[in-house]
Amino acid sequence: MKLIRFGELNKEKAAVLLDGKVYDVSAINEDYNEQFFETGGLERLKAFVEKNRASLVEVPAGVRLGSPVARPSKIVCIGLNYADHAKETGAALPPEPVVFMKSTTALCGPQDNIMIPRNSVKTDWEVELAVVIGKKASYVDEAEALDYVAGYTLHNDVSEREFQIERNGTWDKGKGCDTFAPMGPWLVTKDEVADVDSLRLWLTVNDVKMQDGNTSNFIFKIPFLVSYVSQFMTLLPGDVISTGTPAGVGLGMNPQVYLKAGDVVKLGIDGLGEAEQKVVAWKK
Amino acid sequence: MKLIRFGELNKEKAAVLLDGKVYDVSAINEDYNEQFFETGGLERLKAFVEKNRASLVEVPAGVRLGSPVARPSKIVCIGLNYADHAKETGAALPPEPVVFMKSTTALCGPQDNIMIPRNSVKTDWEVELAVVIGKKASYVDEAEALDYVAGYTLHNDVSEREFQIERNGTWDKGKGCDTFAPMGPWLVTKDEVADVDSLRLWLTVNDVKMQDGNTSNFIFKIPFLVSYVSQFMTLLPGDVISTGTPAGVGLGMNPQVYLKAGDVVKLGIDGLGEAEQKVVAWKK
Repeated sequence: MKLIRFGELNKEKAAVLLDGKVYDVSAINEDYNEQFFETGGLERLKAFVEKNRASLVEVPAGVRLGSPVARPSKIVCIGLNYADHAKETGAALPPEPVVFMKSTTALCGPQDNIMIPRNSVKTDWEVELAVVIGKKASYVDEAEALDYVAGYTLHNDVSEREFQIERNGTWDKGKGCDTFAPMGPWLVTKDEVADVDSLRLWLTVNDVKMQDGNTSNFIFKIPFLVSYVSQFMTLLPGDVISTGTPAGVGLGMNPQVYLKAGDVVKLGIDGLGEAEQKVVAWKK
Repeated sequence: MKLIRFGELNKEKAAVLLDGKVYDVSAINEDYNEQFFETGGLERLKAFVEKNRASLVEVPAGVRLGSPVARPSKIVCIGLNYADHAKETGAALPPEPVVFMKSTTALCGPQDNIMIPRNSVKTDWEVELAVVIGKKASYVDEAEALDYVAGYTLHNDVSEREFQIERNGTWDKGKGCDTFAPMGPWLVTKDEVADVDSLRLWLTVNDVKMQDGNTSNFIFKIPFLVSYVSQFMTLLPGDVISTGTPAGVGLGMNPQVYLKAGDVVKLGIDGLGEAEQKVVAWKK
């Protein structure tokens, strides 16, 4: 299945993508949140769609899409998980994953504007594959880790590099600004992703290709990451682990290039859909 | 007011402390969570207690206390905010606050056991004053920052130093293990704290005094911290900012000392109550 949330921010309703069209399934009276994943919501949703397929109504074109998962308990991010990206930032290959956290207030929809924070001079992009946790995971073995995964989604791990690196630690300072986590368009359940380790992911700024990577270049693969993070904190259903970005971020360029108001960012991952975000100046 | 939550983990009920006794106010049918603070819950609670004071029933002795705030959207922590603690860890005085995040799954009650994580060799203590946010705060000026504060509570920012410092970044890795955020006993509303910049805070391990500090030694005071963090992420009602720890942690000793199963940690802050946590070995 491909899960979608649509409507006003923080009031999104449930939808699914079927044959390329978005159908309203809000009659199921559930949101795609912790409780949904924890209590077998995916199975309920599948049964609901099968039973009601003929009467489902399409969501009108132009309606806002939200993040395909409701605000999770946490967004955990992995740093420097592609060798080419580690190299461009001047970092050594990590002996084990770098882990940081993104404030969940950064979450927004795949077509929402990216707002440059007040006093920002280095707002940067990062196309990433995000893993959505399906059930509570604590000290999970790598061999069983995929049992704890509900699916995958597209994430732009927007990052303010001065806040992240030059403002006296830690990285979290440059990762959690409002609109810094556009997610979606869809949550694709794992059964629909044939090989998650072989997906192309790309990002353009004003239609110029900036990132063009492949998850085959992961330093640490998804089962390892889920297992690894679960050694340090309990992952709850609906939680997100974002798996890092390939080469081609603004920080890695010479000279460095950052986002400015008016820029348009487009990004996508094979099978996980595409997103487009307009960059706007900070306003209260 | 002094707010308390009691009962089974994740099923806590509302209570208040009156004249040194804990009274059940669960008939108000609210939890001390984001919605409560966002919608004037403190005023409703005050009115409820005034109206029903005579008929309130005491909570039986020995009942488990939970964190006095329900799981927030985030726990933001400030590092190295006491000059003496910065010195003992070998860190320079920070030019601006160090900010990191603690997984909210670490939250537990003030008398709950601290569980040493699997593979941990350096589990450490940190008595801290935690600020609870009362209303949504984004780009708040320092002069108005206290308007966004609901109150204060006692927090043990339990930290695994090897995970935090020696496991390839960032600090978040050593801060969010289960039971690493015992909070409470009470949330004290800010009107009941005469001078938050002059509170003694202390911690003992097996009745040996380890930390004995005073918030008068804050490098960055609370209004500055609330304003500062709100420049990087939006703070939601019920969110927690933990303001750092004074000298006396295990990491700063020579030789270093860490917690082991059977140890008993006690801590307290003037006017915010005391807590006691037994240290236990990891078990699944």
